Amino acid sequence: MNTNQLREDAFQIFQAGLDAVNPAQAVKRHLQVHKNSLSVSHHHYPLSRYQNIYLIGAGKASAAMAQPLEEALGSLLASGFINVKYRHSLPLKRVQVKEAGHPLPDEAGIKGTREIVDLLKKSGEKDLVIFLISGGGSALLTLPVEGISLDDLQQVTQTLLRCGASIHEINAVRKHISQVKGGHLARLAYPSTLISLILSDVIGDDLDTIASGPTVPDKSTFRDCLQILDKYGIRDQIPSSVLLHLEKGLQKGIKESPKKGNPAFTRTQNVIVGSNRLAVEEARKKSELLGYNSLILSAFVEGETREIAKMHAAVAKEIRRSGNPLSPPACVISGGETTVTVKGEGFGGRNQEFVLSSAIEIKGWKNVVVLSAGTDGTDGPTDAAGAFADGETVQRGLDLGLDPYPYLKQNDSYNFFKPLEDLIITGPTYTNVMDLHLVMVGAKD
Amino acid sequence: MNTNQLREDAFQIFQAGLDAVNPAQAVKRHLQVHKNSLSVSHHHYPLSRYQNIYLIGAGKASAAMAQPLEEALGSLLASGFINVKYRHSLPLKRVQVKEAGHPLPDEAGIKGTREIVDLLKKSGEKDLVIFLISGGGSALLTLPVEGISLDDLQQVTQTLLRCGASIHEINAVRKHISQVKGGHLARLAYPSTLISLILSDVIGDDLDTIASGPTVPDKSTFRDCLQILDKYGIRDQIPSSVLLHLEKGLQKGIKESPKKGNPAFTRTQNVIVGSNRLAVEEARKKSELLGYNSLILSAFVEGETREIAKMHAAVAKEIRRSGNPLSPPACVISGGETTVTVKGEGFGGRNQEFVLSSAIEIKGWKNVVVLSAGTDGTDGPTDAAGAFADGETVQRGLDLGLDPYPYLKQNDSYNFFKPLEDLIITGPTYTNVMDLHLVMVGAKD
Repeated sequence: MNTNQLREDAFQIFQAGLDAVNPAQAVKRHLQVHKNSLSVSHHHYPLSRYQNIYLIGAGKASAAMAQPLEEALGSLLASGFINVKYRHSLPLKRVQVKEAGHPLPDEAGIKGTREIVDLLKKSGEKDLVIFLISGGGSALLTLPVEGISLDDLQQVTQTLLRCGASIHEINAVRKHISQVKGGHLARLAYPSTLISLILSDVIGDDLDTIASGPTVPDKSTFRDCLQILDKYGIRDQIPSSVLLHLEKGLQKGIKESPKKGNPAFTRTQNVIVGSNRLAVEEARKKSELLGYNSLILSAFVEGETREIAKMHAAVAKEIRRSGNPLSPPACVISGGETTVTVKGEGFGGRNQEFVLSSAIEIKGWKNVVVLSAGTDGTDGPTDAAGAFADGETVQRGLDLGLDPYPYLKQNDSYNFFKPLEDLIITGPTYTNVMDLHLVMVGAKD
Repeated sequence: MNTNQLREDAFQIFQAGLDAVNPAQAVKRHLQVHKNSLSVSHHHYPLSRYQNIYLIGAGKASAAMAQPLEEALGSLLASGFINVKYRHSLPLKRVQVKEAGHPLPDEAGIKGTREIVDLLKKSGEKDLVIFLISGGGSALLTLPVEGISLDDLQQVTQTLLRCGASIHEINAVRKHISQVKGGHLARLAYPSTLISLILSDVIGDDLDTIASGPTVPDKSTFRDCLQILDKYGIRDQIPSSVLLHLEKGLQKGIKESPKKGNPAFTRTQNVIVGSNRLAVEEARKKSELLGYNSLILSAFVEGETREIAKMHAAVAKEIRRSGNPLSPPACVISGGETTVTVKGEGFGGRNQEFVLSSAIEIKGWKNVVVLSAGTDGTDGPTDAAGAFADGETVQRGLDLGLDPYPYLKQNDSYNFFKPLEDLIITGPTYTNVMDLHLVMVGAKD
């Protein structure tokens, strides 16, 4: 397989991964309505048992997830309410859609979340609630407890971020000042039956972390929250409303977030309908159909993108040199979310920078192609999802007067790949399960 | 396999890799004397054909490589001369050993190289020369052309390094002002028969790069050298002796370095007797003997060590989570040479920092062990070769009051691992094929 073939195949393999996490497809694959029974991943819900079926949700992909459900349930669906990011709504018949702020939550998000809570409060033992969660769900499902304002919430998040608290520490505090996160949403839905369909945008697909776990038991406590504030010495930088609430919680003046064993969770089914791993696995299947020896390296990829790219290039070289870890034609697949430490003034994204770094590493290697692209179709602030590189990319750049080294130094990957016509443009995909990386190695010929 | 077992096995696997590149073993494996015939990797040299057999060499391991040859050849060996690093000499009978400067070449190295050149000049068509090259060979085999001093040589190298020239560009210039690099040594040996036994310390084992390729055709030209100076605008920063020599070369006043097709190379056999890849492959064999599913990821590993470690940890997590790229008990092996961008004031090395970064990534993961260690037994300026980490390492550190994050920030990996007794101490191994990284994943419990 020559370089052109490898590039074409790489794009098809990426596309297969993308298709697997298309929000509508992801929902349809995991949920079917058949003969008055709703099946969700081997669980069966006889629809005659339920008085009302409600649909709620929050996240960038939630409108796209709701469409096939409306179609499948038809008039069985009583009503619903979902929050999506601005410009992410789609036409729905029985479900109201509220556009709201992301990544920073806003009052629209709070308003929408209140609607969802009101709907849950009126749902009862004989009702079924289907909850759709996707990337951005944390910001789009926001409702602080009474007395804590949106400003207070943002201030405490900022303070925690600044002092270097981990995502788990930040989430512990957020869960304890929220009416919906940290299992509270499941508690509100109880005694209804709750099905939570999750499109994961988190490495490791930890249910406790995705959107701060609205439908799973919370492991953290009010005591933990106050210990976190003390650990970083930030009690005096926290809004008094937040501190007061946490202290009241410690003194048992407020109920803890729902823990393991809470009856709400006996009526809750959490199902991951789409994730980076799923995309990676489907990409792998496609690569095998196309005749490649293939291998999933990891769906846990994190780290500085230009360095992680070097490791992927190192695997490409080994395949060519020794046939390890697998022999050509080979396709090595990984996924996750890398980071860029911005030092330059350029324009690009983590995927394009991954590919630029790879291009430098594989310079001169025959029939080696690297692809990296974001499943949401938007890499950084650019209109590209990612890019391609092969062993000739650097030379083709130099021929156009584009020296890859200064472009990499300036974090200017977009402006390196655009004139080379090596960008991958998909447009917005309305899904997000982070990024896919492909390393393709053909025979030497 | 529990964590303790994984650690023990990891050490054994590392040791197997190390044994494979032990200088004496490496030479013995590739060269045998049997019934008056010398066999080197499927080539046979009838010893009766040769009048004299000479042994020459340069590198940290060259004395250790010479010992088994003296033993095998006995009185067939006429004489020899090798340059080793200070404190790296070993007792030899027929071969003189000169200790010299490394990594910076010194006058002792030049003196020794002149002895080698004199020996080669007196060798003739009926003689056999065995040349031993190993890590440090570039500095330890140094002889600038007449009129260029050691100071001049160092100045031009420094200038090229400072302006950001690549290793290939630096080598092009070095080869053109040297009497021995860039194929010149093979030319000097001609018409003798030349066997070059190479212990590679270079990623990719490119013969042209190892010690600046004394026994292989040179691809670069005087014209290239001057273009490199112009590319970086450093003609006026280069010692006049060097510039004069390069310009004279361009005007055909001096012969080019030996190119492909030069008769010298028809009488030269280059054999890599030890390399990172060989260590990685032997480590893999050992891991399979110990009952692991195993996989060679790459022997081309480069990049910022703490980020490359994250990629290794990501593979460990995937193995545990999905059984990709292979199922537990699993051993993933890689090798190469990572780098550390020193920002702190701590004490450590690239392998120990790799393991510290890994420890943070695998925190809390059951039965996952990471090992990284240098095959030369010396990681950075420390007395350790590397270190171990498992899922409990961070907690054990915290229990001793050692927070891994500031230790990583300060590049202080040695002082994190020493109190934990997680350092790997081998002492000097007299070999160097860069580093080995092992990721071990046992069953969940």
